[in-house]
This record gives sequence, structure tokens and C-alpha cells, in this order.
Amino acid sequence: MIEFNFSIPTKVLFGVGKLDELKREPLPGRLALVVVSNGKTMKETGCLDRVLTALDHQGIEYMIFDKVHPNPSKASVMEAAQIARDNFCDFVVGVGGASTIDAAKGAALMARNPGDLWDYIVTGSGKGKPVKNQALPIVAVITTSGSGTEANPWIDVTNEELHEKIGFGVPSTFPTLSIVDPELVLTVPPFLTAVQGFDAFFHAAEGFIAKSATPISEAFSLQVIRLISKNLPKVVQDGSDIEARTNIALAALLSGMVQVTSSCTSEHSMEHAMSAFHPELPHGAGMLMISEAYFSFFAKYVPDRFIKMAHMMGEVTDGLPEEEKPYTFVHALRQLKEKCGVDHLKMSDYGIQADEMEKLARNAHKTMSNLFAMDRYTLSLQENVDIFKAAYR
Amino acid sequence: MIEFNFSIPTKVLFGVGKLDELKREPLPGRLALVVVSNGKTMKETGCLDRVLTALDHQGIEYMIFDKVHPNPSKASVMEAAQIARDNFCDFVVGVGGASTIDAAKGAALMARNPGDLWDYIVTGSGKGKPVKNQALPIVAVITTSGSGTEANPWIDVTNEELHEKIGFGVPSTFPTLSIVDPELVLTVPPFLTAVQGFDAFFHAAEGFIAKSATPISEAFSLQVIRLISKNLPKVVQDGSDIEARTNIALAALLSGMVQVTSSCTSEHSMEHAMSAFHPELPHGAGMLMISEAYFSFFAKYVPDRFIKMAHMMGEVTDGLPEEEKPYTFVHALRQLKEKCGVDHLKMSDYGIQADEMEKLARNAHKTMSNLFAMDRYTLSLQENVDIFKAAYR
Repeated sequence: MIEFNFSIPTKVLFGVGKLDELKREPLPGRLALVVVSNGKTMKETGCLDRVLTALDHQGIEYMIFDKVHPNPSKASVMEAAQIARDNFCDFVVGVGGASTIDAAKGAALMARNPGDLWDYIVTGSGKGKPVKNQALPIVAVITTSGSGTEANPWIDVTNEELHEKIGFGVPSTFPTLSIVDPELVLTVPPFLTAVQGFDAFFHAAEGFIAKSATPISEAFSLQVIRLISKNLPKVVQDGSDIEARTNIALAALLSGMVQVTSSCTSEHSMEHAMSAFHPELPHGAGMLMISEAYFSFFAKYVPDRFIKMAHMMGEVTDGLPEEEKPYTFVHALRQLKEKCGVDHLKMSDYGIQADEMEKLARNAHKTMSNLFAMDRYTLSLQENVDIFKAAYR
Repeated sequence: MIEFNFSIPTKVLFGVGKLDELKREPLPGRLALVVVSNGKTMKETGCLDRVLTALDHQGIEYMIFDKVHPNPSKASVMEAAQIARDNFCDFVVGVGGASTIDAAKGAALMARNPGDLWDYIVTGSGKGKPVKNQALPIVAVITTSGSGTEANPWIDVTNEELHEKIGFGVPSTFPTLSIVDPELVLTVPPFLTAVQGFDAFFHAAEGFIAKSATPISEAFSLQVIRLISKNLPKVVQDGSDIEARTNIALAALLSGMVQVTSSCTSEHSMEHAMSAFHPELPHGAGMLMISEAYFSFFAKYVPDRFIKMAHMMGEVTDGLPEEEKPYTFVHALRQLKEKCGVDHLKMSDYGIQADEMEKLARNAHKTMSNLFAMDRYTLSLQENVDIFKAAYR
């Protein structure tokens, strides 16, 4: 029988031009810490300036932390938190891609809580202490379409010393306000557009086959799969196609909601292990490398759900032998990868060695065991190693 | 191009047995005003006792206001608000059907704001003053499946002197917490089960054909229509069918979300006029009486959307002439009414006279003009009268 808890307390402004509304939208305080990446994009595109102008317009003071790099480290989160705490900031504004928003969430949490972020992390070597205080309110201005962090409380953060990349969050790390303006994504180059779009795709697909799927998450998942299947090849081909960009931004937003109304599965744990040892690997790219092996393995355990996903991607299963039907999803996935030019991605290109597979599987099991519990078939360590090996090129 | 704002800040606990979680769930204060209906049901079923026991368990004190009647009046809302204000209540708990939850929301709002509720109402003869203060936090324990008030800020309240029944809400009248436990609905008798279920159905269908439909509301709407079409005849037949009850409770919840991610249309304005003059008319029954005439009128203006809704109800449109396809939705609606034993409802049974049609149409236009603006075809007053006349029996 259906049973679930639902809570998405984030207010989302979605659509072209919505960033302009930031100057009128009620904001949770008078002094903000603005978190941006260490790159130049937010400055060069004018996005950061538009955010600062909106804050000025509201008479809100701010300071800027601009040292976030991709796959944000615990160290940068702690540094940003220290600045927010020392300066008595009222709230945190993240402006950028998923890494930046996640760093902003982490900073908002640690600005209000003592000790180290890893004191609170509940898996891996985290100490799992209860979070005592609510995070500072978080405003997210997202400039990529993929992670869905704009609509969930999750913070993906890497502990570089320990080689742990862990997803963590509490109710107060939902953004209070998220602005999803597809115009801000126009400058993302084709390769990143593709791997980020696939990240959203995998959130939806994993959420759909997870034990934790609910009627709400299922409605979102199927829409994400349909939207990405139709629109991702278009935006990879022509990044200026604002209608397709809007559809992908919507898919990413909904995939973020899938991550709270359902859950990711072990595929995400496996990729986190890859990123933990190879932080230069984009998350979506890592997912792409293991995806065919992963979904091929699970097809036989959740056939009905694979068939539904395949149908959303335009596959026809009538007339096929019953046992082949679920694999049409893997077929559609492979075709989508080809259309988006990301079918060639190889672990070896990112320096991952063939003999790392067991180490990665062990890290995945240890660091994010929680997601393995969401699988409808429980993977043994050896099966996990085998999936990595099947994926290795 | 797609554009929308999304905000559903309510935490929902959904499923059989969820009421038991009230004793562990963080609640927003130490002193509650508990609002229940003037009937005996909540006392006889033990539901009220279970809520009070949960509050006791948390050491929360409370007082009880038990004078809410169906189609709650402004007077009872103001009376409850006065009690909450005089006693410095921290939050309001509504326990009951939609009328009770709406009264609780109204009381929570007016406990924190000066003057009269009609000072703030934005349509009809409401003065449209801005609401200065946030409502007290609201906890909803819903015991019917239909209105969706558990997942939206809307308060349907009747000004008996002025014959105005108006829907009104502000962001702070979203419940903070809603408990949707299908076991609490088991005792609702067949007729009310049917009309309340149809209320959810109409929220979904109106939200789907409204101008304001968004991808999120559309996903919810289609699921509501499918769930109700499949399960409402079952629960009308056998009220103890907990699985079907659960599906209808889910449909009602999602229909509440449709009302904030899209909107109702003029059909709701029309029914509110009927209830305003005939407060003993159940809202869902009023909707049922006008529904076939209403949807028959709009079928030609929104054909694609009618066809999609028909498909969710199992209608096959292949091979039909194009112009007939949208009317298959009206056909499916008529069949669903028959299966639920509510195809015979007549306005005259509730004392509505044939010569009231123009008065009702004028009231609808004046009192809730805002919903007419959501229609994809703008109804003239005469067309509105004609729909009422076509529906009259």
C-alpha cells in the first residue's frame, strides 16, 4: 500500500527571465554571503553582477566567497562557513552550477553548527552526530541543468584526505528560494550540457527503479525521462535553443524533486567512489561510463519499470519476447548517448586503472551504503566489482 | 515557453497509520487551538481522541473549538480566531473534513491579523487589504478525500449575509504539516465519498484545462483522473476497501497540489454561487450537477486536453471523427457518475429554482471573477447562464 512523506519547502521561480524577479522577491535577511565558483564564468556572463545588482536594489549587503571548484571539497565548505559565521551573515546565496550550490548549502549549515562537517555526515567515516541548529536560509541561482540540487537538500561534498564523496542533507538545507532561469544555462558548452543532462536522467531512472519510488516521484521520473530523451540531443547540437534548454532545465528541476520523493540507487554510490579518487571526473560523465553495465544488470530484477521507462523514450516493445522487453531501455539509453556524443567516454581517459575496480566497489559500499539499501535487488560486493569491470574501457 | 512558480511548503505524511506519527512529529508550539466540526463523527470515531492523546504525549496544551459546520461561515472562523488570539495559542490543529480544515486555516490567519476576514478577501465584496501578518502555523488532520485543502493554502468560506462563498489564501495558510491517513476516511458514507471524490476529480480536470496549467500540475492532474476513474466506484461500492481508499486519498492530495501548481476554472466559481445561496448543498454535489454541461461547453475550445483526459479514463478515440474525440471525456465522466451512483443529482432536490440561473451566474462572475480569467475561452455572462440552464433539472 502506498505510503510516503512529502516535503519540498523550496519556492521555485522557473522560466526565462526569472532572475529579474530576484530584485522583488522577499529575501531572508540583510546580509548575505554570496558563494560562486573559482572560475570566471559567472563574472564573464554577467550573472554574478545581476545577482549583486538585485541585492543592492533590495538594500542587502553582501560579501563574496569565490573559491568553489568542481566536486567541492570539505575544506572550501568549511572556509565559506567560517566567513559567514565571523560576519554574522543572515543567509547564503549560491550562484552557479551544482558544485557551487552544494558548497553554499554546506556553508549555510556549518555557519550555524560547531565542529566539522564530517562530524554530521551519516555514512562513510562521518561521525553521524545529530545536527543541532538549522542552516542559514539558502538562495540558489542555478546555472546548469542536471543535478537537481535546486529542489532538494542534498550536498555532495568530497573529503579529499579520506577519498570520500558523500551526499548529505537535512531539512534546513533545502533552498528557501531557487531561481531556475534557462537563459543562465545558454553558455554551458555541449559536453558539459550532455553529462549534466544525463545526471538528471539518471536521478529520474534510479528514482523510478528504487524501492522508495512513490506515485509523486514516478510521475516526475517519467516526465524527466521523456523530456531528456526528446530535448538533450537538441541542446547538445544547438546550445542556443532556448525552448529545448527550458525543457532540460525543467527535467533537471523535476529530477531534483525525484531525489526527495524517492531516492537515488547504488549507481550514484558507485560514481561517487569514482569521483572521490578522481575529483576531476565530472559526476555525469562517471555516471555515463557505468550506466549501461549498471542498467543491464538490473533490467531483469525490475522488468516492468524498465519497460515503462523505455516507452517514455519512444521504444516499442509489442511483439518482443517478454524477457527482452526491459532491455529496450538499455538500448534507448545507448542511442541517446550516441545522439549526445557521449557514448565514447572511457574511465581510462580520466586515469582510472583497470585494477581499481575492487577498490572503487569497496569505497562505494562503505561510503554510501545507504543507497544500496534502495535497490530492489541487493548487490553483493562481487557483483558490484563485476559491474565496474563490465563498464571498464 | 514554460514558466511557473512552484511552492508547496507543506510537509505531508501520507499512508495508513500515519496519524500515529503525530506524537513524534515536531510541532510548532506549546499551546494549540484544536478545531473540529459541530458533528459527532470525530468524537465517535476516536479520531479526535487520538489527536489529543498525541498532543498530550508531546506535552502540548490545547483548547477545543467544535462549532464548524459544512461550508464554514465567516462567523465561525472569526469566533475561532478570537479564541486563539485571546489565549495566545501558538498554532491551530484542524481535525476533520475540508470545512474544518478551512475553518482552522481561517482562524489561524485571523488570529494574527486585525479586523474582519472580508477586509482581506480579494474578490467579491472583499476589501482586498494586504495581509500584514503571517497566519499561525496550521496542522491539518484530514478525514475526507476530496478538497485537497491539506496541500494548498485555500480557504473556502461563506459570508452568509452577503451570499458570497469565496476561496482565499496566502502563503502562510498552507498547512505546515498535513496528515493524510486513509484509515480516517473509512467511515465516510457512500454518497459523501462519491461527491468528495468528484471534487478532487474536478480540481484535476479544471487545472488541466486551465490557462495556468504547468508541467507539474499536468503530471498530477492526469494521475488524479486515472486514480479516481479506477478507484472511486470501488470505494463507493465498498467503503472498507482500504487500498482503493488509499488511492482516492492520494488523488485528493494531488488534486490539492494541482490547485497551487495550476488553478481551478470558472466551474468552481459557478458552484460557489450555488453553495452561497444554498449552504446545505455539498460542494462536490453542486459540481456534479453542472459538470456535464460545463465540460460539454468547453470540449471544443480545448480538444487536445480533453482527449488526454479521456485516455486516462480508458476511452479509446482511434477511428473517431476528430470533432467527436474531445467529447469522449464527457462520455467517460457520465459513466463514472453512473458507476458512483451520483448521476441522478438535481438542483431542484436542493431547492434551487429554475429562475435562479441568472442570479447564480451574476454571483459567480462577481464573487470569483478571478477563476474566469483562468479559462482558455472567456465565458460571457449569457453563456454562463446557458450552462446553468443546460444543467438544470
